[in-house]
Amino acid sequence: MSKEVKPESVSLCPLGMTAAPEQELLCIFGTGDFGRSLGQRLLQTGYRVVYGSRRPHSCGPLPQGAQVMSHEAAAQSAGVIFLCVHRENYDFLETLVTQLKGKVLVDVSNNLKKNVYPEANAEYLQRLIPGAHVVKAFNTLSAWSLQNGPSDASRQVYLCGNSAEAKQQVVETATKLGFNVLDRGTLSAARELEDFPLQLFPEWRLPLRLAFGLTAFFFFYLLIRDVVYTYVEQDKDISFRIMVSLANKVFPIVSLIMLSLCYLPGVVAAFLQLYRGTKYKRFPDWLDRWMLCRKQLGLLALGFASLHVLYTLIIPIRYYVRFRIAESTISKIKENQTSVFDTTMAWRVDSYYAMGILGFGLYLLLGISSLPSVSNALSWREFSFIQSKLGYLTLFFCTFHTYLYGWDKFLRPSYYKWYTPPGYMLCLVVPSVVMALKLNYHNHRHRKNKTNRKRRYKDTAVTGITRAIALGNLTHCFGCH
Amino acid sequence: MSKEVKPESVSLCPLGMTAAPEQELLCIFGTGDFGRSLGQRLLQTGYRVVYGSRRPHSCGPLPQGAQVMSHEAAAQSAGVIFLCVHRENYDFLETLVTQLKGKVLVDVSNNLKKNVYPEANAEYLQRLIPGAHVVKAFNTLSAWSLQNGPSDASRQVYLCGNSAEAKQQVVETATKLGFNVLDRGTLSAARELEDFPLQLFPEWRLPLRLAFGLTAFFFFYLLIRDVVYTYVEQDKDISFRIMVSLANKVFPIVSLIMLSLCYLPGVVAAFLQLYRGTKYKRFPDWLDRWMLCRKQLGLLALGFASLHVLYTLIIPIRYYVRFRIAESTISKIKENQTSVFDTTMAWRVDSYYAMGILGFGLYLLLGISSLPSVSNALSWREFSFIQSKLGYLTLFFCTFHTYLYGWDKFLRPSYYKWYTPPGYMLCLVVPSVVMALKLNYHNHRHRKNKTNRKRRYKDTAVTGITRAIALGNLTHCFGCH
Amino acid sequence: MSKEVKPESVSLCPLGMTAAPEQELLCIFGTGDFGRSLGQRLLQTGYRVVYGSRRPHSCGPLPQGAQVMSHEAAAQSAGVIFLCVHRENYDFLETLVTQLKGKVLVDVSNNLKKNVYPEANAEYLQRLIPGAHVVKAFNTLSAWSLQNGPSDASRQVYLCGNSAEAKQQVVETATKLGFNVLDRGTLSAARELEDFPLQLFPEWRLPLRLAFGLTAFFFFYLLIRDVVYTYVEQDKDISFRIMVSLANKVFPIVSLIMLSLCYLPGVVAAFLQLYRGTKYKRFPDWLDRWMLCRKQLGLLALGFASLHVLYTLIIPIRYYVRFRIAESTISKIKENQTSVFDTTMAWRVDSYYAMGILGFGLYLLLGISSLPSVSNALSWREFSFIQSKLGYLTLFFCTFHTYLYGWDKFLRPSYYKWYTPPGYMLCLVVPSVVMALKLNYHNHRHRKNKTNRKRRYKDTAVTGITRAIALGNLTHCFGCH
Repeated sequence: MSKEVKPESVSLCPLGMTAAPEQELLCIFGTGDFGRSLGQRLLQTGYRVVYGSRRPHSCGPLPQGAQVMSHEAAAQSAGVIFLCVHRENYDFLETLVTQLKGKVLVDVSNNLKKNVYPEANAEYLQRLIPGAHVVKAFNTLSAWSLQNGPSDASRQVYLCGNSAEAKQQVVETATKLGFNVLDRGTLSAARELEDFPLQLFPEWRLPLRLAFGLTAFFFFYLLIRDVVYTYVEQDKDISFRIMVSLANKVFPIVSLIMLSLCYLPGVVAAFLQLYRGTKYKRFPDWLDRWMLCRKQLGLLALGFASLHVLYTLIIPIRYYVRFRIAESTISKIKENQTSVFDTTMAWRVDSYYAMGILGFGLYLLLGISSLPSVSNALSWREFSFIQSKLGYLTLFFCTFHTYLYGWDKFLRPSYYKWYTPPGYMLCLVVPSVVMALKLNYHNHRHRKNKTNRKRRYKDTAVTGITRAIALGNLTHCFGCH
Repeated sequence: MSKEVKPESVSLCPLGMTAAPEQELLCIFGTGDFGRSLGQRLLQTGYRVVYGSRRPHSCGPLPQGAQVMSHEAAAQSAGVIFLCVHRENYDFLETLVTQLKGKVLVDVSNNLKKNVYPEANAEYLQRLIPGAHVVKAFNTLSAWSLQNGPSDASRQVYLCGNSAEAKQQVVETATKLGFNVLDRGTLSAARELEDFPLQLFPEWRLPLRLAFGLTAFFFFYLLIRDVVYTYVEQDKDISFRIMVSLANKVFPIVSLIMLSLCYLPGVVAAFLQLYRGTKYKRFPDWLDRWMLCRKQLGLLALGFASLHVLYTLIIPIRYYVRFRIAESTISKIKENQTSVFDTTMAWRVDSYYAMGILGFGLYLLLGISSLPSVSNALSWREFSFIQSKLGYLTLFFCTFHTYLYGWDKFLRPSYYKWYTPPGYMLCLVVPSVVMALKLNYHNHRHRKNKTNRKRRYKDTAVTGITRAIALGNLTHCFGCH
Repeated sequence: MSKEVKPESVSLCPLGMTAAPEQELLCIFGTGDFGRSLGQRLLQTGYRVVYGSRRPHSCGPLPQGAQVMSHEAAAQSAGVIFLCVHRENYDFLETLVTQLKGKVLVDVSNNLKKNVYPEANAEYLQRLIPGAHVVKAFNTLSAWSLQNGPSDASRQVYLCGNSAEAKQQVVETATKLGFNVLDRGTLSAARELEDFPLQLFPEWRLPLRLAFGLTAFFFFYLLIRDVVYTYVEQDKDISFRIMVSLANKVFPIVSLIMLSLCYLPGVVAAFLQLYRGTKYKRFPDWLDRWMLCRKQLGLLALGFASLHVLYTLIIPIRYYVRFRIAESTISKIKENQTSVFDTTMAWRVDSYYAMGILGFGLYLLLGISSLPSVSNALSWREFSFIQSKLGYLTLFFCTFHTYLYGWDKFLRPSYYKWYTPPGYMLCLVVPSVVMALKLNYHNHRHRKNKTNRKRRYKDTAVTGITRAIALGNLTHCFGCH
């Protein structure tokens, strides 16, 4: 904005009734959804807004209070110009090279797919208009959050550009609008900024693939063990069991394995730290990556556990189960059998359900504490307590639940169909390893504590995990620049 | 604030150790809850605070560090006065007209009901003290959020007033307190601001009425078909079935219809856009209104679906169900019947439960992603994926679940009591229409894409819906000024 | 920062293209996790950063763009120094007393336990370096939130210190980083700030102890009534019932009592206000404390209610229940009994389940509206409606559910084992008292309203509760200074 700053208008801060703040004039090219939302919000925050349009007299509804001019006139009157048009239309700006010289051009564009163009929109724009100072900003916002005000996640606005003064002006405007601005460097970071809104659950890819792989493996494993085996060996078609009975074995198995995979990297990392002696050596990349997707692993496992609970609760209203119970009662009558109440069986079944319910209840609590608003309201110590101590308790209950379910099945040969172990035994491998390692770690640490009194940090697995996270994230953070 | 700004205190920004920031003095009239919370927070942010009170020496507990004076003395010493008293007490200000001349009077009052007074509190105040500059602000805050700091939704503060400089001063103070300020224009907007905290779920009114209407209709429809019919035709009183069996038919029917009504406007809007050719024509008002309450429709439908799940799961512990099963087993014994296991029935029942569980699971996921903190953490593409793609998948599962439930009932005349179709058939009309239209739309769009290569926008139903929302909201937004 | 502020750089606000903002230089001592995250964020926000390190040439990875010097050189070049080292290392600063004279020293340290040292870290630091201005700030942040940007709860930064200008400088920096700063006073508040991150659910302590106490009491009460009594009187061992049957009596009893304890203080407070006549007298401390932990009481009660629901839903798949049902059917056949369908029983059982489901559904709604992001999105009136009106409705449904469960059991002597009443009767005492008091209160208020027309406030129980909360919190707030 090419105007002189009069000394007395400096008295803006602190306040004075005498000098009125002169509202700054900003220019917007483009009268689409985003252009209109942006203009509306700038007007509400106290700026004056002028739109540049191809047809100033018939360009559709604009926010009240905004002026409309031709592109040339609008470009001349303001110092900062927001370019709210699609990349395909950037060529029209070539006619305005002289008017845009020395101005700040804010590029807010996005593409609909990644890698459509060889260079980022902002870099292309800078190439078109070398005299202007192109700043990439606001492209991660939606017209929605401009209208309704910044909320927690949409408060962060990323910015990059080659000129420090141009960036500073955009930072001031963004701050007035209520956003937090993070500078990502020069215009070479524009490609990264343009890819942000096109993300589709990047951190869920690995856990989803793992879940899919485990589900497919156990589904076919159990299909062969149950349905195919029965068909081959006993010539009976029990394929109807696929829909519920088989599903209700696959889901809990996948859930428990993924839950233990959530806690395994923590124990592995803690052992590594214990034996290396220092915390600042980087972890291997695979361990780093694994630790970053633990939250997603845990939430997917919770999803599978919820399906398992629902499938279990509909057991008594299944036709197959009712038929079977009726048949069993009828055959008892006909054969005049008397059954004795097996107290051990009663204890075992009730305990195994109780363990399952308590484990699932704690698991739900872990899930609720992962919600962004709840985890933000917890202090670090509270969050660690829930995710670590209550987390290991959940793993214990669920593992014990599965051991009780198995009970003495492993002793009976009939369960080893074609010499393959039952699904629940395969399922119990990883959780048992994790629980064993955890106990082992606590023993080692207790012994090490006695010999080393000058420890600076209280080396709990929790601190180990948190620092590992922090380290992992710092490396990712530095990698951006 | 009538003080001269000394040149060297301007060096506040950027920082310098030599010039100390002179803390500004603000005045508060009123020592109630709000007045005390406001004063506390201003003191914590670094302001000096003086209270004006009728009885300066016995006005109850005040925040430490605040001064107390008579109203006249307090009004004279500060430039901005926060008026934290109820409207009924505004008359005492008439005695202070001379001291209040030229000051900024911030009106934070609320009424307990709408439309109690003919004019807004702020307009009444301005009429009482014409010499002061009345600014309406902070009335949407509670003493709670002043004490605990602004959180996401309470960060937005609305402001209106006739004088731009007065508003600017209040904006600066609000920003220092950590709030985002939106200017709503002149004092004529005061009525609107005063109605904000008295809202009681305005956007839920239509969906709630719809839910109530559908529930009442289907309740009486099924009451007549089941209970009244059986009483009239078979002289049997099965009215006890109202509490659970009937409820467990009404709830899923209403839920499925409302879920499909969630997705119907999107398909209708997409068809409209396809045949109109342009996106900037406004939608009909009814369609606009419908699209704005889709989230509430969906959440209500999720509530009904949850009730349906709970009612279904308690089926086997009902006295009526246990009695019926026992009777059926006993009669089988007595009549010496042997029942053959019906595999098709087993497949059908298991599939229909599996579809229901998967549909409900996805539905819960949709609900969780609607929580403010979760939806804010998602990118636009991620949110669209969940609400649109996973949403249609949910609708598909639930519709298929209902078709499997129905199976071949529609072929049997006994289900057409007094020539009325079973409830589930009425229920399936809207969802089937929505799924059919959606498939039809995709075919049309595919053909249109081939002929039109110069499309600027990738016209997915998602983009169509989002733009329609944005358009709809912009019209509402402009309507305020 | 000892540099002269040139007049033209004052034109920072408002903007001007000619004068570039000179980036301020900040110094960080300490190259650990926190030091690096802080430096990274300061660089992104536009500051220049210099690290002070013992070994400037081999201190590990630092954010790009930051300089490294020796401690003495770094201390001399900046005016504000962030001290990101542990308290045990503060002694090295004694060698830098001369360089640190007049500088602002920001202490961000935390301890791992409370009360390890006799004085707060910041006070110790000030004692070590009397010439510097020590400001305690940022200690409640984690490296995580520095990296990922401030989110709702971690936006609040507390600050304390003896020098107002030093605090002002830190406030400006924190505000630029996107945080809200609250001044807690002089350095004597440092101990309180250092205890913040070590909190472990302080407001849950009382509710958890109450829940534990009630659970233990009712567990032993019912254990004696059910298991021990049967063993002593009928010589039968039914101890297997502990895992599920007994648990499924303890959990709902504790849940209902805690839910009614949630609403009891509100009614008591409302009665107190009604008979005292004024709102500004303080409540007794115990009432105050009780009212502050109502949210936690309610959420714990919801947890117990959820466990009760799960335990109830697995009833039909328990071995004990299946055995008992089979035995009952078999004995009916053998004794050739015909059972008549008891319609009253059917009505009662179905109604009692329906009440339970509706009560639990409303209870889940209350819980969802307690989530931070949801409660922030509601207006005051909406939140009151849910928590108060819907809350009392939930209490009513759950109480009615328990009355229907009891039905006529209280009339049969066999339920009074060793002259003790059944658990459900003890459970119903508190809820019935609460409902009775509430109805009584509404009658009294209605009569009082007629006689007193000059009421300033519409005295609803809701307003009563809210004011009581606000009052309670204000006293806590003042107590800090």
